[in-house]
Amino acid sequence: MAEPSTEGASQISPVPDNWTKRHLLGLEDLSAEEINTVLDTAAELKEATGGCKDKLSVLSGLTISNMFFENSTRTRNSFSLAARRLGADTVEFSAGTSSLSKGETLIDTAKTIEAMNVDIMVVRHHTPGTPHMLSQNVDCGIVNAGDGPHEHPTQGLLDILTIREHRGSLEGKTVALVGDITHSRTARSNIWGLKKLGAHVIVCGPSTLVSKHWEDYGVEVSYSLDDILPRCDVLNLLRIQFERQYTRPFPSIREYALLYAMNKTRMARAKDDILITAPGPINRGVEITPDVADGPHSVILNQVTNGIAIRMAVLRLLASQQ
Amino acid sequence: MAEPSTEGASQISPVPDNWTKRHLLGLEDLSAEEINTVLDTAAELKEATGGCKDKLSVLSGLTISNMFFENSTRTRNSFSLAARRLGADTVEFSAGTSSLSKGETLIDTAKTIEAMNVDIMVVRHHTPGTPHMLSQNVDCGIVNAGDGPHEHPTQGLLDILTIREHRGSLEGKTVALVGDITHSRTARSNIWGLKKLGAHVIVCGPSTLVSKHWEDYGVEVSYSLDDILPRCDVLNLLRIQFERQYTRPFPSIREYALLYAMNKTRMARAKDDILITAPGPINRGVEITPDVADGPHSVILNQVTNGIAIRMAVLRLLASQQ
Amino acid sequence: MAEPSTEGASQISPVPDNWTKRHLLGLEDLSAEEINTVLDTAAELKEATGGCKDKLSVLSGLTISNMFFENSTRTRNSFSLAARRLGADTVEFSAGTSSLSKGETLIDTAKTIEAMNVDIMVVRHHTPGTPHMLSQNVDCGIVNAGDGPHEHPTQGLLDILTIREHRGSLEGKTVALVGDITHSRTARSNIWGLKKLGAHVIVCGPSTLVSKHWEDYGVEVSYSLDDILPRCDVLNLLRIQFERQYTRPFPSIREYALLYAMNKTRMARAKDDILITAPGPINRGVEITPDVADGPHSVILNQVTNGIAIRMAVLRLLASQQ
Repeated sequence: MAEPSTEGASQISPVPDNWTKRHLLGLEDLSAEEINTVLDTAAELKEATGGCKDKLSVLSGLTISNMFFENSTRTRNSFSLAARRLGADTVEFSAGTSSLSKGETLIDTAKTIEAMNVDIMVVRHHTPGTPHMLSQNVDCGIVNAGDGPHEHPTQGLLDILTIREHRGSLEGKTVALVGDITHSRTARSNIWGLKKLGAHVIVCGPSTLVSKHWEDYGVEVSYSLDDILPRCDVLNLLRIQFERQYTRPFPSIREYALLYAMNKTRMARAKDDILITAPGPINRGVEITPDVADGPHSVILNQVTNGIAIRMAVLRLLASQQ
Repeated sequence: MAEPSTEGASQISPVPDNWTKRHLLGLEDLSAEEINTVLDTAAELKEATGGCKDKLSVLSGLTISNMFFENSTRTRNSFSLAARRLGADTVEFSAGTSSLSKGETLIDTAKTIEAMNVDIMVVRHHTPGTPHMLSQNVDCGIVNAGDGPHEHPTQGLLDILTIREHRGSLEGKTVALVGDITHSRTARSNIWGLKKLGAHVIVCGPSTLVSKHWEDYGVEVSYSLDDILPRCDVLNLLRIQFERQYTRPFPSIREYALLYAMNKTRMARAKDDILITAPGPINRGVEITPDVADGPHSVILNQVTNGIAIRMAVLRLLASQQ
Repeated sequence: MAEPSTEGASQISPVPDNWTKRHLLGLEDLSAEEINTVLDTAAELKEATGGCKDKLSVLSGLTISNMFFENSTRTRNSFSLAARRLGADTVEFSAGTSSLSKGETLIDTAKTIEAMNVDIMVVRHHTPGTPHMLSQNVDCGIVNAGDGPHEHPTQGLLDILTIREHRGSLEGKTVALVGDITHSRTARSNIWGLKKLGAHVIVCGPSTLVSKHWEDYGVEVSYSLDDILPRCDVLNLLRIQFERQYTRPFPSIREYALLYAMNKTRMARAKDDILITAPGPINRGVEITPDVADGPHSVILNQVTNGIAIRMAVLRLLASQQ
């Protein structure tokens, strides 16, 4: 595989010896130490690029392929920018114009792209486990950019980086994930990541969207945002994913918003320094009101910038193992 | 915002002190002096790049995002090439694969892209005023690349640059815009730009497509191409935009062509040095016959090259104000 | 047209004097000497780029436009990577978002893109002869990337390069093209190329998909893979292109596979050093079984890498004549 150029690398720390992963498939697989390595690398790359703006050449000579089988604005562009900010070349693959419609298997498509000397593939697919399956069938590195409702590890990492930037250590912090936990890959990745770094995690939402089984993993389950709100250091407001649901999990949007939307009234009952995060895209008036989304506690746009930092870090770490 | 690299800038003039605009929303907003600044900058960049071919690095470090919510071949590619010829990075956003389908507002989509450290957004949208609204809600620069039937300022500027290249000053020249004026953003941008530079503007077409109200702005209104033809220095032949019309504005294409198509017979009655322009895409046999489109008076393909020059100029001028 | 940069060119041989073609429209038009020039250039560029991975700057300053009017994963990305590996800039054009839907002719679309200073256009279109027609109407170089069922010359060249790499000279080798010959542009390009280099070519498949007329060109026609198999040095297993057929050419997929699929039983009857090639995308279980596709005789993924080598070579050779 490619030898990453060392030009530009002198400005940043070498990849730690304890990093040995060739793929990033989910936060369930990472140790606390490995998660901290990604966060530290992201923080350093963010600073070295003047806030994810300037270019380095630590990955020049590498080719990154975006393979997205689901719609995406922010994640696709974020990976693409992260790759180019580090000097890598990118190949965009989109499902609509691909050979899959000609009867090719997904593995053959991936092997074909790999044979064009792609070093790392960033994969989004509606079927859970797709990135894992590809990682067992191709030689290049695989990043899971969302596999159905299963995991979305770079989203979890950017959420955690944003909390760490604003609150320091995650240890002992109470973080509530509010909304559609059942269909959310963001929730799963956050739960694994936050727990490993010592946070207390609450999942909160209507019982039709929040499974009691998370208690088995040391996660608190709540059906009332008003009950848990005063204890929370951070809220992560998940979008109701209408496109994933087959039966109506609650009577109406209005009823959902009444019980779970973060609004001015609820902000008054929250901790003074509560942090409002959301993976986006947000649905204003559903899980969050405009005054909260645009208010001083919201770090939603910081999360977007940190997304580039995390993806730069992940690409750099994985590239060192190809 | 980004500090544009000065490498390569030594070859070209500094941005004039009188340029203070952060956005280009329409030619209605620009003074004659500002229009001339864009034209002069475009002419200089065109020469410095060997006719819009070679690369400069005056915008290296900047990221330009194309946000097109309507189909486009030439405008999208033209902006993209202009950005890359000046060393900027580009991010392509397309409506079909975006988060808008997930219920995100347009402003939130734009803010998300901005948070990825985009410096200038190039926006095309079917709703008039969209770029203006975005310019009030994001911090980066906005270029209107066509907002419904309202304005398309870089098209107006490239039309004017092409006339200036072939005829020198616009002062006192008679320029007729022929065709569908009501639905044409190109017409509106041309009218504002041409009037400010001292041209006499005629709008000409069937009364169903040409509003009498333009007379209030000092524009001559005509319903007969044959009447005005002998006086015209320049014709700008607009396409009948079938995709925008809800009622048939004339009995048939054949009838339209009979009255308004520029053809061999009409060329014989025109001034010897008449200039034929068209914003393209052209519909051969409708507003223009092939012998005229491909004839010696046609500068339609020069307009395409000048489109890159104008877009390089606009990006450079706006970048200086971010 | 553009002066290709000489930086990086010092590492590789100059373009041979005998290369005078400005377009690559099909292998029917090339002499054996010209085909060998492409193969030699590809082999040299492959080595100079460390197996099509590293970048050279032999084409810096050139702009290549991909104009694909049909779906494509591998060919589009392969041309794009080939262009960028040699330092050229690329413009992606896709039919779905183009001005063709606004009534523009294909020639006008091409002339417009050319006026943006594109040096070489890579064209895929469902109508045979489209690249030829464009080559007569624009000044830039044209590469046929597949024109309906007619030709796909870079596919033929990469197939031949792969055979040459593994078997040395093509002279006297027996190469069988198996499957849907009638609808296959890959078959046509292979036939012309292989014959010119001295190979013995067999076309084999059901009589509904294999025309007897190829015998007029010195090609052997067979309807039984089992009959010809023991004599073959190379098999090129073509995909059944379900999307092109209007009547069922055989009773069922199962029947086709029974007679023409390359499987373990047939491998046992083949020459010890038989080479298995396929243009891809492959349909596992139809023309090839997984154990053959993934077995030691298969060079299907080498073909993908060689595709980049061939396209680098073609772009370099054509660029020298613009």
